[in-house]
Amino acid sequence: MSVLDSKQRPEPSTVMAMSTGSPTLSMAEFIIAGKPPVEARRRAAIAVCDTVGVILAGAPEAAADIIRRTIVAEARGHCRVLGTGVCASASDAALANGVAAHAHDYDDMCFVSMAHPSCALVPSILATGELVRASGNAVLDAYIVGFEIECRLGLVMNPRHYHERGWHSTSSIGTLGAAAAAARMLGLDAPSTVHALGIAASLACGVKENLGSMVKPLHAGMAARNGVMAAQLAKAGFVASKRSIDGPQGYLAAMDSQNPPAALTDAIADLGSRWEILETGITVKLYPSCAATHPALDALLALKDKHKFTTEDIAGIDVEADSMTSRLLTYGRPSTALEAKFSMPFCAAAAIVFGHPTIETFDAERIRDPRIQKLLPVVTLRANSAFDASTPLSQAAVTVRLDDGRTISARADGARGYPGRLTDNELNTKFLACAQRSLNYGAAVEALEGVRAIETTLDIRILTQLCSDGLV
Amino acid sequence: MSVLDSKQRPEPSTVMAMSTGSPTLSMAEFIIAGKPPVEARRRAAIAVCDTVGVILAGAPEAAADIIRRTIVAEARGHCRVLGTGVCASASDAALANGVAAHAHDYDDMCFVSMAHPSCALVPSILATGELVRASGNAVLDAYIVGFEIECRLGLVMNPRHYHERGWHSTSSIGTLGAAAAAARMLGLDAPSTVHALGIAASLACGVKENLGSMVKPLHAGMAARNGVMAAQLAKAGFVASKRSIDGPQGYLAAMDSQNPPAALTDAIADLGSRWEILETGITVKLYPSCAATHPALDALLALKDKHKFTTEDIAGIDVEADSMTSRLLTYGRPSTALEAKFSMPFCAAAAIVFGHPTIETFDAERIRDPRIQKLLPVVTLRANSAFDASTPLSQAAVTVRLDDGRTISARADGARGYPGRLTDNELNTKFLACAQRSLNYGAAVEALEGVRAIETTLDIRILTQLCSDGLV
Repeated sequence: MSVLDSKQRPEPSTVMAMSTGSPTLSMAEFIIAGKPPVEARRRAAIAVCDTVGVILAGAPEAAADIIRRTIVAEARGHCRVLGTGVCASASDAALANGVAAHAHDYDDMCFVSMAHPSCALVPSILATGELVRASGNAVLDAYIVGFEIECRLGLVMNPRHYHERGWHSTSSIGTLGAAAAAARMLGLDAPSTVHALGIAASLACGVKENLGSMVKPLHAGMAARNGVMAAQLAKAGFVASKRSIDGPQGYLAAMDSQNPPAALTDAIADLGSRWEILETGITVKLYPSCAATHPALDALLALKDKHKFTTEDIAGIDVEADSMTSRLLTYGRPSTALEAKFSMPFCAAAAIVFGHPTIETFDAERIRDPRIQKLLPVVTLRANSAFDASTPLSQAAVTVRLDDGRTISARADGARGYPGRLTDNELNTKFLACAQRSLNYGAAVEALEGVRAIETTLDIRILTQLCSDGLV
Repeated sequence: MSVLDSKQRPEPSTVMAMSTGSPTLSMAEFIIAGKPPVEARRRAAIAVCDTVGVILAGAPEAAADIIRRTIVAEARGHCRVLGTGVCASASDAALANGVAAHAHDYDDMCFVSMAHPSCALVPSILATGELVRASGNAVLDAYIVGFEIECRLGLVMNPRHYHERGWHSTSSIGTLGAAAAAARMLGLDAPSTVHALGIAASLACGVKENLGSMVKPLHAGMAARNGVMAAQLAKAGFVASKRSIDGPQGYLAAMDSQNPPAALTDAIADLGSRWEILETGITVKLYPSCAATHPALDALLALKDKHKFTTEDIAGIDVEADSMTSRLLTYGRPSTALEAKFSMPFCAAAAIVFGHPTIETFDAERIRDPRIQKLLPVVTLRANSAFDASTPLSQAAVTVRLDDGRTISARADGARGYPGRLTDNELNTKFLACAQRSLNYGAAVEALEGVRAIETTLDIRILTQLCSDGLV
């Protein structure tokens, strides 16, 4: 699968009659009336489940705690901040849940928008869904139209916007996605949805230099909050320029899109007929470390499972990956949790010593563990440019040299959390581990059952209530 | 005065020992300890007075009303939304007051930051000043350090950031100024101020394509709110990257600064010794129309005052201005209030028919007035490139041809609202006219007396209370 190969795309069908007006109006028409296929909802439901889990995992983190104390403590409202007893306004709840969702960098990814999509979209649809007492399926449809809008913008803007200009797409593109989702959720008409997107174009923000600080999860929260606010303002009659996205001084130009604004018209032509959520899909993270570590971790854990070696048996671990991986994983000897998430030696050593990496794997005392420190020097990471053609589905080759002279190896083509590969059991296991950072075991199980049954939920508040009961 | 001529600048003095650390730390040290001269406070006090006035004028406007209904209605807090009975959280009050301040495009300007500075700074210092019960002088000092930070960023970033890349400096640079002012107001230490600036770097937004819509005043509100939030988060322990402004993927790079990030170090070297608020100053608008109309309006009103002609006497009005003016004033036959603000024919005709332009001058029925419609075709605007050298202090020449064959003319070198020219009477008259859109006459007079005495105010809440009593 090459996510950017336009030849593989079906011709725009007649599923949905697109407007002949501005591209923003065309997007608005899709947002309010797009009919996602059943499989798209299934994908969205996985994303919602996974994201509710990481929100519950992130809620106790310092970044999420500060946001709540600073913003939410002042606010009154009826929208739930998951994993807490706090209710807040829709925009503040979206902010708080967005920060929590991205606090561990454990939330899902999209290779087209080059964003973590769900950490902005899910808080947006939950908060606005609570406002209108939406059904689970309405919430999923709102997620999907927001996701599709993000992807079309990503196709036009990336990679320059993200890689060269330093914009954190999770926020800068996510704001538009969150606004689209909130507009659908609030039932805006087409003119109001145009205004919601136009307001959102002026609220998009987030510079990559702040990755590695608490501001990274704040970017997700800002995208969610500003998207919700844009839709709320548009619903109340606030108006924006109709050219605020594609005009000469608009969002695409200011955000330094890879392609000229006119490319947006082509990129949105297949909205409603082609579903990026089905083609590219959403990648769920099964380890709370940089995604570039995941293929190698899959291969290493498979080798360990098959050959049953232990820390004491290891003479060396050699990892080969694509060229981008070694540019992302820059920490050979990490000293903090954040550095450890971007360290192939640490992640490989931790997989040997502790097994499947979890949030707790990155605790400071585990980083200092003598067994980890002993293994770090024997792990090597090498770029293999032969793997580059397959990115973003990173390939990895792992070779373990054992003390008894044996050499065993395995390869991975992408990671287990990639679309269509993730098992129900993997998703459930991750959710329960995440949720128990905020909820007791019984409550976590009930929350999981609730969120897995989202397509039958008549009022999304039943689900959010489950994520606020049984606090630990 | 050439605001960008570095030769005129004094050498950095030893008034303030600057750090040898990062430029952001240097800015933080200035923010927390900069000692503005007495004259700087006087300039700031004028700006505060003028801005409180335009807030009171903007409070009943649709954009401000929608913001209040959508955001503030959900919020609980003790910070006043001026000109209303609403109290809100600090960040929401800053948002609401910021939108009101810029709703008529009647608030002040700065030629270096290329921003309307006070519409973001004043809401930021009022809300945070209320939180800490600050004295009037403390509020003014917070204004000044925020203003100076904005100017240094503007020197580095403009004109490309604003003119070519489509960023609305009022918001994109104003966010950093509002954060600096709020940090000073909340008494942050240097490391926390660095984080406040770093958080603000990731919250800066606002594209120029939305000028001409309600989103323009929203930009001011967002800058104020996000600046307050950045300082509040930093105070509560939230951390940002220390390179988020000048790093390779930071604010200056992403916002497409005119100069490389290294130029910031030079630009801030004279913080605390040279005061841009004294050199460039703050330009108060005496007419609620595009600033480019002001020199010509001054000249025309002076001619009218001297020669006492009326609408019936006019055969033609010929305006010459610099080249930029004709690029800004694109409406020959305006049909809306916003178009009329950017129309030299309308503004000139309105000055003849109604006298000194006020907010009411731009009401729809006045635009349709037969006397205005009769005069519009006889007003010409011509670019005179000989005037270009003096920008941003636009020159204008106005020639009025009278039916009796007389030709009278006048010139203006800048406008009456420019720094050092504005009279107390002009400021007071504008304030009272603005304030009476929200307050009754007696309350407006009391508010004016309160705001003019800001340097003796022991608790800024006394002043904000005056702007919320006697609502019309």
